[in-house]
Amino acid sequence: MGPHPAVAAIRLAVRRVLHDLLNEHSRDHEAVATAVTAGAPAGTGARTAPEPLVLVACSGGADSMALASALAFESRKLSLRAGGITVDHGLQHGSDLRAAEVVSRMTGLGLEPAESIAVRVGREGGPEAAARDARYAALDAAAERHGAAAILLGHTRDDQAETVLLGLARGSGTRSLSGMAAVSGAAGRYRRPFLELDRQTARKACMVQSLPVWDDPHNADPAYTRSRLRQEGLPALEKALGKGVVEALARTAQLSRDDADALDAWALQADATVRDDAGLLECAKLFALPPAVRRRIVRREVIGAGAPAGSLFARHVEEVDKLITSWRGQRAINLPGRVVARRQGGRLVIRQS
Amino acid sequence: MGPHPAVAAIRLAVRRVLHDLLNEHSRDHEAVATAVTAGAPAGTGARTAPEPLVLVACSGGADSMALASALAFESRKLSLRAGGITVDHGLQHGSDLRAAEVVSRMTGLGLEPAESIAVRVGREGGPEAAARDARYAALDAAAERHGAAAILLGHTRDDQAETVLLGLARGSGTRSLSGMAAVSGAAGRYRRPFLELDRQTARKACMVQSLPVWDDPHNADPAYTRSRLRQEGLPALEKALGKGVVEALARTAQLSRDDADALDAWALQADATVRDDAGLLECAKLFALPPAVRRRIVRREVIGAGAPAGSLFARHVEEVDKLITSWRGQRAINLPGRVVARRQGGRLVIRQS
Repeated sequence: MGPHPAVAAIRLAVRRVLHDLLNEHSRDHEAVATAVTAGAPAGTGARTAPEPLVLVACSGGADSMALASALAFESRKLSLRAGGITVDHGLQHGSDLRAAEVVSRMTGLGLEPAESIAVRVGREGGPEAAARDARYAALDAAAERHGAAAILLGHTRDDQAETVLLGLARGSGTRSLSGMAAVSGAAGRYRRPFLELDRQTARKACMVQSLPVWDDPHNADPAYTRSRLRQEGLPALEKALGKGVVEALARTAQLSRDDADALDAWALQADATVRDDAGLLECAKLFALPPAVRRRIVRREVIGAGAPAGSLFARHVEEVDKLITSWRGQRAINLPGRVVARRQGGRLVIRQS
Repeated sequence: MGPHPAVAAIRLAVRRVLHDLLNEHSRDHEAVATAVTAGAPAGTGARTAPEPLVLVACSGGADSMALASALAFESRKLSLRAGGITVDHGLQHGSDLRAAEVVSRMTGLGLEPAESIAVRVGREGGPEAAARDARYAALDAAAERHGAAAILLGHTRDDQAETVLLGLARGSGTRSLSGMAAVSGAAGRYRRPFLELDRQTARKACMVQSLPVWDDPHNADPAYTRSRLRQEGLPALEKALGKGVVEALARTAQLSRDDADALDAWALQADATVRDDAGLLECAKLFALPPAVRRRIVRREVIGAGAPAGSLFARHVEEVDKLITSWRGQRAINLPGRVVARRQGGRLVIRQS
């Protein structure tokens, strides 16, 4: 008898990602081996390669416990080592004890190393962003320290749907609708095997494997936007639009990501064609581009001049765009990060003041 | 003392659109006049032009009554005639009487012609789509019959937000998130002056002008997806994400429209570069394009072969795309409208069976 369908599903998702990683690793290693063995006896390089290490980031919740269990299981059949990291955000009383418990569960699954890292969460960008920043910094450091090839993250299709809705609320267009990438971070360090799997499946997989899971009270705390979305917003939307909403949102993420990538590539390529000899943007040439491409060039220029990307909204870019499309002698425009945009002699001049 | 802010807002919105229309009209007319008077005494053409007629589509609800009142007011100050059409869908008992009442209200506002058109609503595509199809067919016919330059529609920013969410539920990407256009239809016949105005403003404008409005019970009927969205989905989303959601959704519509337009233009231009001498799509050349552009070319090809656009989903296009990106000898793929896609000799062959 095979495993329960939910367990089969989480393992398949992880197996696919591990195969990708092994393919990438052997390709990279061949390149290194070729370089090392140039002039040395053939074949000596390949045998000394250590097995790559894959880490799972595990909060102890159902999604990441399911991920940890699947990583432990699949790694045994492959030439790789599997470990786990849990981050203690120190935001709740006893969080250190809980982290220790997660470590012992990871050890129990056969993950090695299995460790807890305590972080200090700042305040910048709000509580959710500050916790996320601290967490990724700790995970990055752990990956460097252990020389890990990748860190697996337990985000599910439901998380993806929530992320798309959060992006929608920003109203800043296609890129903000593209959710989380299956591969992200420096050199593709972060991998999200469960991005097409629903939360219910992860939960079920824990249940049938008798894995205890920890429900983070933050996930239901209405003080957090994402919790409100999860508890009320998304269910109401499903009631109005039907059960397929989560899947539709996840697909929107993928399509939006592809669209945003293509348009960014276009803007990057067009950028070189709209500058004068001094490297200044020429308004007449910008005007001839499609609005979607032109605004991306403008946005990049403003960020390049020092505006923080997170504070630069569509309406800012829109206003600068009017210097190109509806020029009637407007004044200079003040933008976040003390960046000023003005039109001078048919050129768009964007500088920090 | 000026008008109430809500009344000022609806009038300004309509005034802008009427100015656009007059500019377009005089430009078109100059072109005609130039053609007519070539060889005739100069200037004789311009004087004989009739004043253009602008119609408002009015259900008797707050949005379109506000629109009708603003059109009547603004048209008096401009060289144009203003009329109104109400469509009797015949879906409720006494709808003919109500339509007659709307006509008398439009006449009372000074709109001429003011008429009711009875339509027969079919069943195709569900009740909402069928009613919409019948309505637009009637409005198109009325515009032709009266020689109208434009028909104004009362869709507000709230309607736009709902349309974006409905598109999101389809999960078919950037184009489906682009909502309603400010200008649409044959030769830009349909104009939506209230697309950046909220429903509350239209309602307020009716109230302070003592215009009686009719609340269509369909708008609150939970049998309709849009009603559920309006009554429950959107309020819950606002509760979770904050009051700016409607505005963010409307801005998403505009940004998505620009992005989709740019990518469609790219796909159209790239299409010619990926065909062999016989006009067949070459897989190797398609493979080199960004996924967003490649899938648009595929989609257009499938629709061109006879698949109904409304039945062709992202997952269909995705599957055909795999013939290009993950070729391992797949079978032919059956698509809506009896269209079949296969890969043959490195070419993508898409034909109706």
